[in-house]
Amino acid sequence: MQTKRTPIITLTTDFGQRDGYVGSMRGVILSICPQARLTDLSHDIPPQDIQSAAFILYQAFFFYPSHTIHCVVVDPGVGSKRRAVAVHTDRGIFVGPDNGVFSLVLNLANVNVDETVTLTNPDFQLPNVSATFHGRDIFAPAAAHIANGLPLRKFGPPAINLVQLISAKRSEADLCRIIHIDHFGNLVLSVTASHIKDPERVTFVLGDKVIKSLNSTFADVAEGQLLAYIGSSWDHIEIATRNGNAARELGARVGDVVKLIEA
Amino acid sequence: MQTKRTPIITLTTDFGQRDGYVGSMRGVILSICPQARLTDLSHDIPPQDIQSAAFILYQAFFFYPSHTIHCVVVDPGVGSKRRAVAVHTDRGIFVGPDNGVFSLVLNLANVNVDETVTLTNPDFQLPNVSATFHGRDIFAPAAAHIANGLPLRKFGPPAINLVQLISAKRSEADLCRIIHIDHFGNLVLSVTASHIKDPERVTFVLGDKVIKSLNSTFADVAEGQLLAYIGSSWDHIEIATRNGNAARELGARVGDVVKLIEA
Amino acid sequence: MQTKRTPIITLTTDFGQRDGYVGSMRGVILSICPQARLTDLSHDIPPQDIQSAAFILYQAFFFYPSHTIHCVVVDPGVGSKRRAVAVHTDRGIFVGPDNGVFSLVLNLANVNVDETVTLTNPDFQLPNVSATFHGRDIFAPAAAHIANGLPLRKFGPPAINLVQLISAKRSEADLCRIIHIDHFGNLVLSVTASHIKDPERVTFVLGDKVIKSLNSTFADVAEGQLLAYIGSSWDHIEIATRNGNAARELGARVGDVVKLIEA
Repeated sequence: MQTKRTPIITLTTDFGQRDGYVGSMRGVILSICPQARLTDLSHDIPPQDIQSAAFILYQAFFFYPSHTIHCVVVDPGVGSKRRAVAVHTDRGIFVGPDNGVFSLVLNLANVNVDETVTLTNPDFQLPNVSATFHGRDIFAPAAAHIANGLPLRKFGPPAINLVQLISAKRSEADLCRIIHIDHFGNLVLSVTASHIKDPERVTFVLGDKVIKSLNSTFADVAEGQLLAYIGSSWDHIEIATRNGNAARELGARVGDVVKLIEA
Repeated sequence: MQTKRTPIITLTTDFGQRDGYVGSMRGVILSICPQARLTDLSHDIPPQDIQSAAFILYQAFFFYPSHTIHCVVVDPGVGSKRRAVAVHTDRGIFVGPDNGVFSLVLNLANVNVDETVTLTNPDFQLPNVSATFHGRDIFAPAAAHIANGLPLRKFGPPAINLVQLISAKRSEADLCRIIHIDHFGNLVLSVTASHIKDPERVTFVLGDKVIKSLNSTFADVAEGQLLAYIGSSWDHIEIATRNGNAARELGARVGDVVKLIEA
Repeated sequence: MQTKRTPIITLTTDFGQRDGYVGSMRGVILSICPQARLTDLSHDIPPQDIQSAAFILYQAFFFYPSHTIHCVVVDPGVGSKRRAVAVHTDRGIFVGPDNGVFSLVLNLANVNVDETVTLTNPDFQLPNVSATFHGRDIFAPAAAHIANGLPLRKFGPPAINLVQLISAKRSEADLCRIIHIDHFGNLVLSVTASHIKDPERVTFVLGDKVIKSLNSTFADVAEGQLLAYIGSSWDHIEIATRNGNAARELGARVGDVVKLIEA
């Protein structure tokens, strides 16, 4: 017996879950593609925070099957001339505004440029497109029609030169910075394990705090102690307090510099 | 090939997602109707806020297929004599307490009075109905049995004269008020675009702030500036700060009057 | 026509929904078992709060079909020697760390000891197991493989003497305590209805507040009044303020003693 594989659509927004905006998007999708499997990456992206959305997508997308459609709506430019796009890659199809939200993903996935398009065809949008809610009116219908198997070239002309906002790759010139702070207050750094020459001879300095060596896991230090370890997101180094909240205790923020001394 | 369409059930509550109460409801539904597609409109309705639930349902329900079952449990009167009802309309079936939570929806959907009933039949409730959690014990089983195709008249006697709490229609006597504040701090007003004679010659006054003319979208004004625009919910006018939080900046609250001057 | 029943997996974590960690787990599960029905009990367990997770699972699991797989990841000991387990019972299969999180459930469900195992077989883990995110790398794949029908004995050796953290049963020595505070600020007590000899002649004392008799539901008292009633979770007694937040008003916390006088 041969069965068609079930389409999967993930949703990532800064809408929160309180107002039913995401619920409206789900209704649009299920109206067009009733068999779609819907799942959420996050709806609690800080409002208009494209970098945060880019990071969260980057740490999650790779665990989905490669036919998954990832619909990301963090869209401060809605109603301006920013493009709405669908990006075909070997690791999933990405639907959303062309504002850099796919920058980190595109470090890991290879774009199929012939199938990367601007979503301009009104046939695959809701009949009355609002000026402020393209998540519901343009991106949700696009994701659902793609889930139905509609070829991407039907949506509009090719989209080249996608906005590239940030990179997860470290250049010589890069400082080590905090690029994400998670729910537990753990600090995700821009450097990954492969950048560290000797895990036993590295020191991290954050304000007046000094963390010596790279540990394996929380249990390596006492409760309430700071540690650095190889995190679960693409081997990025993280700094945490065991059973505590490092961000709150240190007053750390995204963008803060962490000095890295290899001796 | 003919396939039976998949039943869809949306859930809207003021339970939050922390305690597993919504999770219990989902378990009850999947036990009765394993093939139901479950989706959430909101579980972060402010506790006991019927008006907020009515608005969120109103802005979302229309984007679902018309066979969808919308189960809404914002139920401060649980255990009192308020009725539990299922309301059959041409735009969906609504299950919940008869406390006005369906008021706004019923401005847009036509009720089938012969199939609108009180949920009194214990055969379609959990065996032990608690005094405080009818979401799990009465409404979830009702939604699931309806999803299984059980005719509504099996649940109990007709329910006439549903509680009508609020209206989204503007009467001559209506003042323009804030009827909803969303996650971004955008203020949704009671007036809709059709009430405005000339978008270029209208002024909104909120406290000591004056907003001239109706814009199209956020990008029409500079960052941090206030604007009024036709929102994405049934053409209600909204007031927002571009990339800011208007509610917080203005100290605005639901129910506040906005003066509307058409000159 | 015979159809295979659809596997159901519930997820309970302290990850929050902001970072996409739960989204990664869902991707892992759908990659291994595309037909699994995924649902959430809670992701807002207070960080590292095993007791809270145990209570939320206890109040929800029984409403799911008995073939449901409940995956619980509140795991402060991740990376230490705490065991990863799958516990087979007559009321569901429980997957998570062996840290007491299943303690309350195991008061109600009977364990099948021959099918209760330690999750050590690397064949059913992700290829690169991180030191800090076993939810994604060990527990999610285990839940998905079990959903596919893989026998539990394939995962590793039997797990005996599961950690038993807390009990919902009242012993003679037990004081009556607050064991959970919910989203509404309602206080769930350790005693259940069966412990109360005469509902009309019982008094609860919490700090300087005295609540006389056990009521049926919120509507039995005036708005803003305190009441005690038989709650919806396994007949545990709860204390609430009608249309208010008892926890906030009383400054109550989990673990606080409530004096119970039966006269």
